[in-house]
Amino acid sequence: MDKVIEERKDMSDVVISTRIRFARNLKEYPFPCRMNTEQKCRVAQIVKEAVLESSNALSKKFRYIQMSELTQEEAVSLVERHLVSPEFISDREGRGLVLLDDETVSIMINEEDHIRIQVIKPNLDLEGAFDVADKIDTILDEKLNFAFNDKLGYLTQNPTNIGTGMRASLMLHLPALKETGAIGKTVSYLGKLGLVLRGVYGDASTQKGAVYQLSNQVTLGISEREAINNLYDIAMQLISQERTARTAMAKNISVLDSIYRSFGILQYAKLLSNDECMKLLSNLRFGVELGLFENIDYDTINHLMTEVQPATLMKNIGKKLTAQERDQIRAEVVRTAIMRKQVPVNRRLE
Amino acid sequence: MDKVIEERKDMSDVVISTRIRFARNLKEYPFPCRMNTEQKCRVAQIVKEAVLESSNALSKKFRYIQMSELTQEEAVSLVERHLVSPEFISDREGRGLVLLDDETVSIMINEEDHIRIQVIKPNLDLEGAFDVADKIDTILDEKLNFAFNDKLGYLTQNPTNIGTGMRASLMLHLPALKETGAIGKTVSYLGKLGLVLRGVYGDASTQKGAVYQLSNQVTLGISEREAINNLYDIAMQLISQERTARTAMAKNISVLDSIYRSFGILQYAKLLSNDECMKLLSNLRFGVELGLFENIDYDTINHLMTEVQPATLMKNIGKKLTAQERDQIRAEVVRTAIMRKQVPVNRRLE
Repeated sequence: MDKVIEERKDMSDVVISTRIRFARNLKEYPFPCRMNTEQKCRVAQIVKEAVLESSNALSKKFRYIQMSELTQEEAVSLVERHLVSPEFISDREGRGLVLLDDETVSIMINEEDHIRIQVIKPNLDLEGAFDVADKIDTILDEKLNFAFNDKLGYLTQNPTNIGTGMRASLMLHLPALKETGAIGKTVSYLGKLGLVLRGVYGDASTQKGAVYQLSNQVTLGISEREAINNLYDIAMQLISQERTARTAMAKNISVLDSIYRSFGILQYAKLLSNDECMKLLSNLRFGVELGLFENIDYDTINHLMTEVQPATLMKNIGKKLTAQERDQIRAEVVRTAIMRKQVPVNRRLE
Repeated sequence: MDKVIEERKDMSDVVISTRIRFARNLKEYPFPCRMNTEQKCRVAQIVKEAVLESSNALSKKFRYIQMSELTQEEAVSLVERHLVSPEFISDREGRGLVLLDDETVSIMINEEDHIRIQVIKPNLDLEGAFDVADKIDTILDEKLNFAFNDKLGYLTQNPTNIGTGMRASLMLHLPALKETGAIGKTVSYLGKLGLVLRGVYGDASTQKGAVYQLSNQVTLGISEREAINNLYDIAMQLISQERTARTAMAKNISVLDSIYRSFGILQYAKLLSNDECMKLLSNLRFGVELGLFENIDYDTINHLMTEVQPATLMKNIGKKLTAQERDQIRAEVVRTAIMRKQVPVNRRLE
């Protein structure tokens, strides 16, 4: 990963997080869609043991979650925290999740494939994320027989994943490209390069909060390194375009107005819907990116973007809440987090 | 004015200001609509001298403004500061204005009538405003021959003013009655009692900012004292209704949300249109009325409501501004005024 050495330069003004996902399947079993619950439970057990009983030091830090035992809020919160896919919780019977204690690694068992290894790292860290995924893959490979074909590579249920079985992706904050409308053209241009850019919260054009996921689509006839380098190159272009657009926008009074208003509302609102909150947090992040709020850091905003999601909100509070109660608690959570960063402790709030 | 003794109780949570207006005409001249410019100038000269050359101590504090000499912004600003009527500046030829140094007294010459004496006092002060208007009336009466009929009283161009020629009015802030929708019913009910309630900024139902003017309509067959007592009684009822509605509303999270958001936006916006600004200031005043912002006083908000008007903004800055420049300076004016009240001087703003 020689090229990725540049990652050490700080890209956190644009890159929120890095994700690497490997799809793997067991040679001896049919794909999950063709298994009954009993078979699924057996596969889950096998994979669970392969991770938790490995001699690798990492193994001690994993825990196993039987998906059918979670409440609906706990399950949805896993999606909101980007630890599992929405599909994974749609039918939880016979599905298991192996989770690292700091939640940077999750292994979905019996999603579309038998095994989906996912590693999330904050900021731009393709090298770091790949290394961890590779390590987990090695641990599993010692105990399990992966479905692998010398010509095709890893076999997966969906043909689009055959080959490396790898998807690398970056979560990007692109408020300036969104504001200028350049994002639409970018989406179609990236498609031709074998990458996809999609809005994380809503679709690319109408979404609340300018958070996008850029990922590679090609897994066949390309090495992991090539795919990652390709993603990296394109990301660098996007980052550079975004930064240029920001510079042009930094003096625009309407943009500044919208950022500062968002800051004012986040500080004072007593009710915040999820949609509005995401939009305002995105605007606030834009303000931090433009250097307008020195006391607020990206981590605070990145965490808030997950914490304010409905199920995660309820999970953290520990009870079910009505929509209005959620809006009220969401406003409190945001206010507290921002005020803590912003204002001397002994200052009266209002 | 024995009844008005209760005025000493503080009503400033609802009453913004009190206004008394006398309409007077000179016996020797036709009504302004029937005079040519030369005649108007003569009347203006006569009235001007009657005030400025009187032996009364008050006379020294007046200045005379020939309306045709003002710029358009200066003229419009007089309307925004409620010193003259919009009609008065529509054709300024031959019209004059006598203004007390603190702008609590204005005498329009050659509006609909030859003379319109207007006294504005902050808060509820019908007695005080009437006394001043009466004093000015006496000064003028010494030098001028008012058109007066023993049976009808003062003669005015519009028959609806014949009699006392007096209009007494209160500027009220009624956010709770507006919010509950009770204001509509109140308007039609007041009509039957010979009073009128109208929105000061826009009409009663759609206006921005819940500021209303309550005034007496009957001038014939009723004494000044009766008219004022009548207005006072109705105002007390409205104040009581408004306060009751506020108490019921003080725990409503949506209302609190809207108030606190307004506060946040007023503090942080970089652009504020006049309409939005009036709405937000009205919400902020509501917050002060509910005791939510102890450091902000009614005077600050009352002043801002005038200061942010477009022509007054330009008059104070001393130059013509585009709409966007006004929105920007309006936001600055508001932010500065509110921050000064709110925050220790040495605190970083952002």
